[in-house]
Amino acid sequence: MTPERFTRINDMLNHRQPDLTVCLDQVHKPNNISAVVRTADAVGVHEVHAIWPDPDMRVSGNTASGSQQWVNVKKHYQVKEAFDDCRAQGMQIIVTNFSDEAVDYREIDYTKPTAIVLGHEKDGISAEALALADKQVIIPMVGMVQSLNVSVAAALMLFEAKHQREQAGLYGINKLPDDYCQKLLFEQGHP
Amino acid sequence: MTPERFTRINDMLNHRQPDLTVCLDQVHKPNNISAVVRTADAVGVHEVHAIWPDPDMRVSGNTASGSQQWVNVKKHYQVKEAFDDCRAQGMQIIVTNFSDEAVDYREIDYTKPTAIVLGHEKDGISAEALALADKQVIIPMVGMVQSLNVSVAAALMLFEAKHQREQAGLYGINKLPDDYCQKLLFEQGHP
Ligand SMILES: C[S@@+](CC[C@H](N)C(=O)[O-])C[C@H]1O[C@@H](n2cnc3c(N)ncnc32)[C@H](O)[C@@H]1O
Ligand SMILES: C[S@@+](CC[C@H](N)C(=O)[O-])C[C@H]1O[C@@H](n2cnc3c(N)ncnc32)[C@H](O)[C@@H]1O
Repeated sequence: MTPERFTRINDMLNHRQPDLTVCLDQVHKPNNISAVVRTADAVGVHEVHAIWPDPDMRVSGNTASGSQQWVNVKKHYQVKEAFDDCRAQGMQIIVTNFSDEAVDYREIDYTKPTAIVLGHEKDGISAEALALADKQVIIPMVGMVQSLNVSVAAALMLFEAKHQREQAGLYGINKLPDDYCQKLLFEQGHP
Repeated sequence: MTPERFTRINDMLNHRQPDLTVCLDQVHKPNNISAVVRTADAVGVHEVHAIWPDPDMRVSGNTASGSQQWVNVKKHYQVKEAFDDCRAQGMQIIVTNFSDEAVDYREIDYTKPTAIVLGHEKDGISAEALALADKQVIIPMVGMVQSLNVSVAAALMLFEAKHQREQAGLYGINKLPDDYCQKLLFEQGHP
C-alpha cells in the first residue's frame, strides 16, 4: 500500500460515524440502493441496513461507484430484526412517512445515535416499521409531485445529519473498533 | 376541474421560483434526468435547462413520477446558448466542480437569481461551462468515493436554495406571468 492510500483510508476512518445509519425498508431498485450506499459513504456511514425478503438481492451496478467496498450492507429478512439491531446500538429510529404526525426532517437531533428509515419506491414505509419507530419525519415539498426519489430523500436526511454532526464536532475522531480498521486497511489497502 | 385541484395547482404556482433553475451539462442517464426534474418540481423550479447534443433526448421513465407535466425542460445544443438564456434572466451561474477554486455549496446566496449547473455522469462539467460560469461549488464529502450521484448533488443544492429562500420569505407569492398560469391551469386542470 502506498503511503498516500494509507493516509487516505485512515482519514476516512476518522470521519466514520458508527452511530448513524440508514435502514432500507424494502427499497428494491438497484439504482436507488446503490445511490444510497454511495451517499452513505460520502457522509461517513460505514454500515447500512437493508430489509429484503428476497435472499438474492445485493448492491450492484455502477451507481454505487465502488462504495460497496467501503460500506457494509447488512441484510435482514424482517423489520423487527433490523430495528432490534439498531436499538441494541442505542439508536433512535426515525421513519420517513407522509402523515400528519410527521415533523420536518430538520427538527430531529441527528447528533444522537440515529437510524434513518426509508421506504419502498411505490408503497412507502411498511406498517410494521411505522409501528416500531420512534418518530416520523417528512421533507416538505411545494410542487405537484407527491414524493421525492428515495435516494434523494436519503441524501437530504444524511447531509442534514452531517451538518449537525459537523457543528457538534463529531467528525475527525476515530470511533470504530480497532479490529474493523485493521481488517479494512488490510483488505482494501491494495487497490 | 374540481375546486380541490384548482386550489392545489394555484398553491403550487404561488410557490414557483422563476428565478431559480438547474442546468444539466450533458447529464445523459434517463433516471438521473428524471430524478432532477422531480426534485425541481418539489422545490418550486418550473423550468430546467438541458444541454444535449443528441436531438432525440427527452425526459421519460417513471423516476420522474409525472413531474414532466409540471416542469418544462428547455433543450439547448450548446452550453453558451443555455447560459445566455439564464443570463438574460439576470441569473448568476454556479457550476459544481471538483477543484481548488470551488467553495462549499452552502456559501452561495441562492436568494439571488441563480442557475445551478451539473455535469456529465462520468466526465463532470465541460470546459466550456467552467469557462463561462461565475463561481464553482463543491459539496464536501468525507468518504472514499470521489463523487455523489448527479441527481443527489442536484437535490442537495436545490434544497439548500429552498431553505434560504424560505428564510427570506420568497415562497407563497405568485411570480409567474399570468399567461403561463392560465395555460397551465387550462392544460393540466383535467387529470
Ligand atoms: C417514492 S417514495 C414512496 C411514496 C409512497 N407512495 C408513500 O406514500 O410513501 C419512497 C420513499 O422515499 C422517501 N421519501 C420520498 N419523498 C419523501 C419526503 N418528501 N419526505 C420524506 N421521505 C420521502 C420515503 O422513505 C419513501 O418511503
Ligand atoms: C458523478 S459526478 C462526475 C464526476 C467526474 N468524474 C468529475 O470529476 O467531475 C456527476 C456530477 O454530479 C455533481 N456532483 C457529484 N458530486 C458532487 C459534489 N460532491 N459536489 C458538487 N457536485 C457534485 C456534479 O455536477 C458532477 O458533474
